[in-house]
Amino acid sequence: MSRVYNFSAGPSAFPESVLQQAQAEMLEWRDSGMSVMEMSHRGKYFSMIAEELESDLRELLAIPANYKVLFLQGGASAQFSLIPQNILNGKTKACYVNTGAWSEKAIQDAKGQCEAVVSASSQDKNFTYIPDYASWQIDQDAAYLHYTSNETIHGVEFQSIPDSKGLTLVSDMSSNILSRPVDVSNFGLIYAGTQKNMGPAGVTVVIVREDLVGLAVKGMPPVFDYAQQVKNGSMLNTPATYNWYLVGLVLKWLKAQGGVSAIERRNITKAVKLYDVIDQSTLYSNPVEKSVRSRMNVPFILSDDALDKAFLAAAEANGLFELKGHRSVGGMRASIYNAMPESGVDALCEFIKEFERTH
Amino acid sequence: MSRVYNFSAGPSAFPESVLQQAQAEMLEWRDSGMSVMEMSHRGKYFSMIAEELESDLRELLAIPANYKVLFLQGGASAQFSLIPQNILNGKTKACYVNTGAWSEKAIQDAKGQCEAVVSASSQDKNFTYIPDYASWQIDQDAAYLHYTSNETIHGVEFQSIPDSKGLTLVSDMSSNILSRPVDVSNFGLIYAGTQKNMGPAGVTVVIVREDLVGLAVKGMPPVFDYAQQVKNGSMLNTPATYNWYLVGLVLKWLKAQGGVSAIERRNITKAVKLYDVIDQSTLYSNPVEKSVRSRMNVPFILSDDALDKAFLAAAEANGLFELKGHRSVGGMRASIYNAMPESGVDALCEFIKEFERTH
Repeated sequence: MSRVYNFSAGPSAFPESVLQQAQAEMLEWRDSGMSVMEMSHRGKYFSMIAEELESDLRELLAIPANYKVLFLQGGASAQFSLIPQNILNGKTKACYVNTGAWSEKAIQDAKGQCEAVVSASSQDKNFTYIPDYASWQIDQDAAYLHYTSNETIHGVEFQSIPDSKGLTLVSDMSSNILSRPVDVSNFGLIYAGTQKNMGPAGVTVVIVREDLVGLAVKGMPPVFDYAQQVKNGSMLNTPATYNWYLVGLVLKWLKAQGGVSAIERRNITKAVKLYDVIDQSTLYSNPVEKSVRSRMNVPFILSDDALDKAFLAAAEANGLFELKGHRSVGGMRASIYNAMPESGVDALCEFIKEFERTH
Repeated sequence: MSRVYNFSAGPSAFPESVLQQAQAEMLEWRDSGMSVMEMSHRGKYFSMIAEELESDLRELLAIPANYKVLFLQGGASAQFSLIPQNILNGKTKACYVNTGAWSEKAIQDAKGQCEAVVSASSQDKNFTYIPDYASWQIDQDAAYLHYTSNETIHGVEFQSIPDSKGLTLVSDMSSNILSRPVDVSNFGLIYAGTQKNMGPAGVTVVIVREDLVGLAVKGMPPVFDYAQQVKNGSMLNTPATYNWYLVGLVLKWLKAQGGVSAIERRNITKAVKLYDVIDQSTLYSNPVEKSVRSRMNVPFILSDDALDKAFLAAAEANGLFELKGHRSVGGMRASIYNAMPESGVDALCEFIKEFERTH
C-alpha cells in the first residue's frame, strides 16, 4: 500500500521528507564514503553530526548556557530511577504530581530510590484534570518536584509551568517536547525519550542545570552518571549514532518549519479541529477538562463500544492507522505530534464524521 | 566519492546489501504503510520483527532453551556495572581476567559494585598474550569469572573457552560475537554491544542462563533488571525499534552467508592474509603472540612512526579508511569484522605491500 496516516503514540510518524533524506543518504552520507551507521563515533564526520544535533536543540529550545544537554540510552523509563540517583544529593524525599499513567510509573520507580511524596493527584477523577497549582502539597525537604508535562495515555497536558515553591523543578516532556515553547530556565532538569516528537526510539534527551551535575550516588554505573557523560560529550559508551543522526534530521526539519513557535500554531490548529469534531458529535466523547486537553494525544471513546472494531477497520480502510486506545483506558487515541500533517487530521475528522453519519 | 572500505573498530562497516534493503524499506516496510521506525513497538508488524530477531539469534548461536535473550540499551559499558548488580546474588567478589583495555574498563566499573579479584593479567607484557588458563587464580567465593573474548584495542582474542573451575562464566563478546561458533552452554552470561558484528550502535544483547535471572539488588532501575526485562520481552521501556530491525537484517544476511561456521572460515582466511603480509614485511609489525591474535582487530605499527601520516593519507587515497590505531596504542588498526569482504582485506594487503615498496 502507499504510506498511511499513522496516529501511533510512539514510536510514531516521521516527517516524510526526513525519511526521504535518510533514504538518500543510507549508503553514503555526503562525501564520506559510508553510511552514518558505519561511522566511528570519534571520527570527523560523526563529530559534525553530534555538534549540530546539540546546537540545533539548544537553538530550538533556547537552552541557556548554564544547562548541559545529554543524549543517553535507556529511555525516559530509565530516568525514572536515574534522576533520583543523580540529583537527590543526600536528601531522602522527592515530590511528584500524579496526573496519569506516566506520572504513576515515575512515582513507582522513584520509590525504589527515596520517599516519593505525592504532592497532588487527579486520580480521583480518573486523571481527567490537573489539580489547581495552589493546592499542591509541596514538601520543602524534598530534593525536587516532578511532573509529567503531557500524559500520553490520558491525554492531559500542562498548559503552563507550575509553581514549584522554590523546589527544583523536573519534568518528563517525552510526549510534548518541541511541540510548544518552554522556558527552560524554570527547570532543574527536563528529560524526554525521542520516539514521539524528536525521532526514533533509542535516545533519551536530558537537559540539566549544571549545578545538578556531579551529585550522583556512589555505585552509580558511570554511563548513567550525568557528570561522567557531561565530561565525555555523551560518549562515555558508544552512543546510538544512527539515532542521533535521525534526531538531528528531525530537528533540522523543525527549524525549516519555522521552529517551535511555528509548529505550536499548527499543533493548536490540528488539536482544535479534532476536539471540535469530537465535541460536536453524539457518538464520540473526550473526558478531559477542556483547559488541559493534550494537543498531542487525543483519546476519545465511542458511546457504543460495540462499534470499536468496525471503527478501527473502517479507519484502516481509509488509510488511518494506529487509532486504537491504550488498553488501560480503551476506546480510541489519535496521537498528532509535530510530524502529523494537518491533512492527516483533516482526513481523520472527515472519517469520524462520516462514520458517525453511517452508524 | 563511492563507498570506501571502512576498517572502523565500531561502529563499523555494514554488509552493503543490508544497507540497500534498509534503504528500499525506509519509507515503507513490506505492506505496512510506514517505516519500521514509525511503528508502535506493540503493533503486529514490529512484533514480527522482534520475534524473528530473537529466533534468528537463537538459531545462529544455537542458544539453549534455558537461556534468555535480552535486547537492552546502554551498551556493554552499562553492563560492566549492571552485571554485578544483577548476578552477584549477595556475594561480595567477582573474578576478572585482564587482557586489555576493555577488561580494564570492566574491572574498573565492577569495583563500584564489589571486590573485583584479578585472576590473571597480561599487563606485564602490554597485553600481547593471554595467561595460561592453568595459572589463573580463581577465588571460589566469587560470584563469577569474567573475561573479554576479544580485545578490540589490543588485538588479542581467546581461541577457546577458558576453564572457570566451576565458577559462573561471564564474557564480553562485543567484538567477536557471531564471528565464530561458541558453545553458549559453557556460560552463565554473554553480553555484546551490537555495533561491531551485529548492526548499529544502540542495542546490547544479553544472553543469560535462566537461573541467573531474578537476583538483582534492591533499588535497581527496573529497565536494567534482567527479570523485569525477561518478563516484558525487553520492552519494559520502549526498545530501540529501528536498531532491532537493523540487527535483524544483519542476522538474516549472516544466515544467507551460511551462518557462523561459514563466516568463521572467511574470517580465518581474511585474518591469515593480513597477518602474513605484516609478518613478511620489515616495515610493519604486530606485537601479539601468534596463537592469540585477533581475527577481528589487527593492530600493527610502522617501524618508523614518522611514516604514519603518509600511510593514512595514501590509504585514504586508495579507498581504505579508518585505519588509525587507537590513541592508547598508536600505529594502525584494521578491524575486519564479518561485514568486511575479502576484497577489502585483499585491497589493504596490496596497499600495505605497495606502501612498503615505495617508502
